[in-house]
Amino acid sequence: MLPAAGTMETDEQAMNIDAKLHELGLALHDAPARIAAYVPAVRVGNLVVVSGQLPLTGGRLLAVGPVPSQVNVDQAQEAAAQCVLNGLAALKAALEGDLSKLKRVVRVGVFVQSDDTFTDQALVANGASEFLEKLLGEAGRHARAAVGVNALPKNATVEVEFLFEVE
Amino acid sequence: MLPAAGTMETDEQAMNIDAKLHELGLALHDAPARIAAYVPAVRVGNLVVVSGQLPLTGGRLLAVGPVPSQVNVDQAQEAAAQCVLNGLAALKAALEGDLSKLKRVVRVGVFVQSDDTFTDQALVANGASEFLEKLLGEAGRHARAAVGVNALPKNATVEVEFLFEVE
Amino acid sequence: MLPAAGTMETDEQAMNIDAKLHELGLALHDAPARIAAYVPAVRVGNLVVVSGQLPLTGGRLLAVGPVPSQVNVDQAQEAAAQCVLNGLAALKAALEGDLSKLKRVVRVGVFVQSDDTFTDQALVANGASEFLEKLLGEAGRHARAAVGVNALPKNATVEVEFLFEVE
Repeated sequence: MLPAAGTMETDEQAMNIDAKLHELGLALHDAPARIAAYVPAVRVGNLVVVSGQLPLTGGRLLAVGPVPSQVNVDQAQEAAAQCVLNGLAALKAALEGDLSKLKRVVRVGVFVQSDDTFTDQALVANGASEFLEKLLGEAGRHARAAVGVNALPKNATVEVEFLFEVE
Repeated sequence: MLPAAGTMETDEQAMNIDAKLHELGLALHDAPARIAAYVPAVRVGNLVVVSGQLPLTGGRLLAVGPVPSQVNVDQAQEAAAQCVLNGLAALKAALEGDLSKLKRVVRVGVFVQSDDTFTDQALVANGASEFLEKLLGEAGRHARAAVGVNALPKNATVEVEFLFEVE
Repeated sequence: MLPAAGTMETDEQAMNIDAKLHELGLALHDAPARIAAYVPAVRVGNLVVVSGQLPLTGGRLLAVGPVPSQVNVDQAQEAAAQCVLNGLAALKAALEGDLSKLKRVVRVGVFVQSDDTFTDQALVANGASEFLEKLLGEAGRHARAAVGVNALPKNATVEVEFLFEVE
């Protein structure tokens, strides 16, 4: 998993995401401005819908193949956290660089590439959920759907999509 | 399936969900206030997003394993209806106990644990959809996505997530 | 794939969807007013949620079975584009026939029936995404989640759901 950090106390603190990421030794890479035939994020009113994110970092996937035969739960959790970083990068671009406009995470959809007999999708999804709470405190707590699937784009182990409330 | 009941006539009646549940001999258990790293429901404006619900009742799952090799369609429909009960319990908690604030069900997402050759996911999902209409009348009619998956958390046969419009 | 056409230049043009479809030799069939226990589309505020669409045309599915063992990527893309047509028909009915009220496509969810080793779900989903952009120009660009699943209703190769912003 990514480095641990205490949950922040106030909304104001919680919103200082860039500082929190820096403290954790992490950074958001620029989201691609254009992904083929769709876009990384769409704003409608005070909602931002972020496209399904794969655990890409530095141009490669952090984990490929199903859990647990090819990827263990710890690795899959780390991959789910990487999807969060990529989702926040897409959100940041949609907010023209100003993550302080994020009010809260509304929903996270987690798809875990699973062997037919794997039943701990919730544990894998916690890699995303706990990382969001670590970064954002109360504002990071969200509704969630986590399911298993037999196949994902580029053979990624996990894909995570997001719905954010913004100012 | 759960006991049959006529569709209610007016919005006012339709909103009297607790009474309707009582008439059907059903009750909503308290939703857990906190589920690990995420929450049962998030309100944003006049929308409430409810997390994916498993067919839990009294601490156990009503159905586990894929349809149809381990669970038949009737049993899976009943499990889907239980997910609705759990989703309404989560909604009720988000509305501070006042389900009369529910205006309508907007969307239901149904994930059915399926053998590779099973193609009646719509029938299983009807277990949720018909139960919602039975309880809520017109207000219970919703958009829906129903798909098969090879694996679900805790080996549940079905998982259902919800989007509600509220006052 | 469906016939090629240039991306339209202005929002005004982009919204003239019926004319664009006519130019492509395509037409929207009437959406069924009532599908079993759910409805094709629900409007909430300035959003319209459209139910998961199968690649039905003239009462039959354009593609059945998983990719690639039973359906190749080209065929699956064409099926995904048919889902878009059906989704726009559902939207049109929800807008009482007036597609000019469509402001933009917000989100597309694409479920691709996949062999366990298939990893090009994004290519299949492009069949939907590129067709939306072709029809709608900028207004057709959307956020997207594309995943593989082992089974879909009626053995359809692909199912696509939609979130639209409307006036």
